[in-house]
Amino acid sequence: MRAYDVILKKRNGEKLSREEIEFMVGGYVKGEIPDYQMAAFLMAVYFRHLDEEETYYFTETMMRSGEVLDLSEIPGPKVDKHSTGGVGDKTTLVVAPLVASAGVPVAKMSGRALGHTGGTIDKLESIPGFRTELSLEEFIKNVKKYGIAIVGQTGNLVPADKKIYALRDATATVDEISLIASSIMSKKLAGGSDAFVLDVKFGTGAFMKGFEDAKKLAFLMLRIAQQHGKKAAAVLSNMDQPLGRAVGNSLEVIEAIETLKGNGPEDLKELSLTLGALMLELAGVANFEEGKKILRKKLETGEALDKFRLLVKAQGGDERVVDDPWRVLPVAGQVVDFSAEREGYVSKIDAEKVGAASMLLGAGRKKKEDRIDHSVGIIVEKKLGDSVKKGETIARLFVSDRSDVESALKLLREAYVISDSPSEPPRVVEEVIK
Amino acid sequence: MRAYDVILKKRNGEKLSREEIEFMVGGYVKGEIPDYQMAAFLMAVYFRHLDEEETYYFTETMMRSGEVLDLSEIPGPKVDKHSTGGVGDKTTLVVAPLVASAGVPVAKMSGRALGHTGGTIDKLESIPGFRTELSLEEFIKNVKKYGIAIVGQTGNLVPADKKIYALRDATATVDEISLIASSIMSKKLAGGSDAFVLDVKFGTGAFMKGFEDAKKLAFLMLRIAQQHGKKAAAVLSNMDQPLGRAVGNSLEVIEAIETLKGNGPEDLKELSLTLGALMLELAGVANFEEGKKILRKKLETGEALDKFRLLVKAQGGDERVVDDPWRVLPVAGQVVDFSAEREGYVSKIDAEKVGAASMLLGAGRKKKEDRIDHSVGIIVEKKLGDSVKKGETIARLFVSDRSDVESALKLLREAYVISDSPSEPPRVVEEVIK
Repeated sequence: MRAYDVILKKRNGEKLSREEIEFMVGGYVKGEIPDYQMAAFLMAVYFRHLDEEETYYFTETMMRSGEVLDLSEIPGPKVDKHSTGGVGDKTTLVVAPLVASAGVPVAKMSGRALGHTGGTIDKLESIPGFRTELSLEEFIKNVKKYGIAIVGQTGNLVPADKKIYALRDATATVDEISLIASSIMSKKLAGGSDAFVLDVKFGTGAFMKGFEDAKKLAFLMLRIAQQHGKKAAAVLSNMDQPLGRAVGNSLEVIEAIETLKGNGPEDLKELSLTLGALMLELAGVANFEEGKKILRKKLETGEALDKFRLLVKAQGGDERVVDDPWRVLPVAGQVVDFSAEREGYVSKIDAEKVGAASMLLGAGRKKKEDRIDHSVGIIVEKKLGDSVKKGETIARLFVSDRSDVESALKLLREAYVISDSPSEPPRVVEEVIK
Repeated sequence: MRAYDVILKKRNGEKLSREEIEFMVGGYVKGEIPDYQMAAFLMAVYFRHLDEEETYYFTETMMRSGEVLDLSEIPGPKVDKHSTGGVGDKTTLVVAPLVASAGVPVAKMSGRALGHTGGTIDKLESIPGFRTELSLEEFIKNVKKYGIAIVGQTGNLVPADKKIYALRDATATVDEISLIASSIMSKKLAGGSDAFVLDVKFGTGAFMKGFEDAKKLAFLMLRIAQQHGKKAAAVLSNMDQPLGRAVGNSLEVIEAIETLKGNGPEDLKELSLTLGALMLELAGVANFEEGKKILRKKLETGEALDKFRLLVKAQGGDERVVDDPWRVLPVAGQVVDFSAEREGYVSKIDAEKVGAASMLLGAGRKKKEDRIDHSVGIIVEKKLGDSVKKGETIARLFVSDRSDVESALKLLREAYVISDSPSEPPRVVEEVIK
């Protein structure tokens, strides 16, 4: 078999066999197929796509390129949750303790911020002392003992995806649904859970702008899970504005804690309850509606908050963060207001630009090597449908000396559209696919 | 400017600016843009194409990546001829001395065999002693003194094309018209001639199988020449069967000499006269019809043959080849017949397979590094429209000990279709575009 022929076949729109896909991915990981042939192949895939069967083989080959975790030591079904990434998306910080408090073990591996979206691991690292790097043994031990652990990737999972993703990132071949689905699902499957709840976002702040594309991605990922004998469900959630009000690491942890206390923004609460209820359903604990009721109760009684406290303590963090987050977490002292230039109603928010503005303040990374400033970020005061007066604050920027405030304000001005007539704000959960 | 953005722009079907094309090609030649980004870019170009203006910039940038020859020392207009490559295409060996004998200087740079097609330089090297590597000075001196010189590439012409072609060859991005046109024309333009006659082939033995694609390529190349202030004309010639009867290096030289003696096959003669007459017309010597008459005369009087003899002598070759080619040229002693399995008429020939069969005998190269056996090849006895009896010889294979005769015969069996009813053979010159 020659890489050339596989590239040619895909370029001509023909279907690849399992052997051909294993040859390409395996050969690339072993360094036998050079970057330039893989790059041409990926661009051909961008135009010709992988069909469902090809995507399945691609995912499986990637998954098997490294370690596949065995979580069988943890009793009961393990349910993982994944978000395709959005602006202000701190749901994991709410959902994980919420679901764990209902008795379903949460063994969660999370990612870091890249581009305009945040990463759970960076957010957790805002908490002084919090350790996100646990050994596999400690990870499993914590889940067994406390019912919850959240870590950065542990073990040598899916090296093929690391190598291929880096290449896609440099060759403009990231945004192809079959490649996205196999990248996500190969990592989820290698993580060793029995079921997956997928939060697939669409809208101005999501990687997938269009609802239909997001839906296609969701169905493809569900199908891959199914083909691997795993249960899965998906939520199509709206990302036409930041989720909640906080964007940036410490600020998002504060909002998550507020939500666990019952005081958080409605959209964050709604999405968290939906994702959590699906996790309970997949775990066989309760059906969706019952699950929601159970979780609502866990918020009211403070049990979900207690679980969060336990998580922080178990992973070495300062548990006082729960009682006094504004004091314990690093929050930038300097605040700059972004105010309305006219009166009216917020009719559009380019959430990607809000995420990018937060990045310019120092909350994110342009390159993998960049260091994050946990103290900076944005609190969005006005969301879709809200009325504003001229000069009223739309957003507050928490800035440090290293923040590029001017550029961030410029992006926010571009991001917000104020119109004369009010419009209906979107609901956060657009569709649930089970 | 970032290579990533240029790839993305082309991938999305947007038009690139001159600066962006110069950035990509220049950056790649300098090694600042890695192979994998260029590979992704080329695959994006395969799907999105370059429009006429982009192709012009691409060609110009490639041309300027190395030396551009100055042939002004040679008096009069210099007319170059280029073939897109076919099976049994030995026209240069006929046309060059023919045109030179009519007083138009021929300063010809030619290529080597690759894949199923032959290369003029390899064919000339069948002649004992013939030197195809002349310095630029000697090249120009010979053209001034003898009116003719044929050499492999001299000087550092179009290094960008060398590097990009090698990458295209490894990434299944060769067969895109805009890339083919700019690859050919950048080399032609760098060769320093004032006018170009392009033999653009279509059919089973050509790179472009379809007539319409070939026509598109021809018009694109004519337009590029025009944009560079050069005169050009094109012939669309049929390659649904080998040109003439000989395929393979020595055998083709023999057939070219026979043609110069007036005894060659009709299609080769017709195509040679057409290409030659266009060269005379572009040189301002005669119009097309007059030119054909002049050249016919040069064949009859033996002046064209004399010019060929001069060419061989001037470049160190054994001039006795002209009088006794079968003895002077290396020709394999062992001959294997490929015979008809049934009676009927030759209704189809996959000429690419005939070329590939000749390659399997040792006449061509699979890889650039492969050595060629000048002595082997195929004489095609039956062409389109010919009647055959069962057991009659369709082709004779001149083989050496290193030839893969079985595989070659298998290819020939696949290449020939014998039908019950006779069909009209195609004419070799399908269209002339001036």
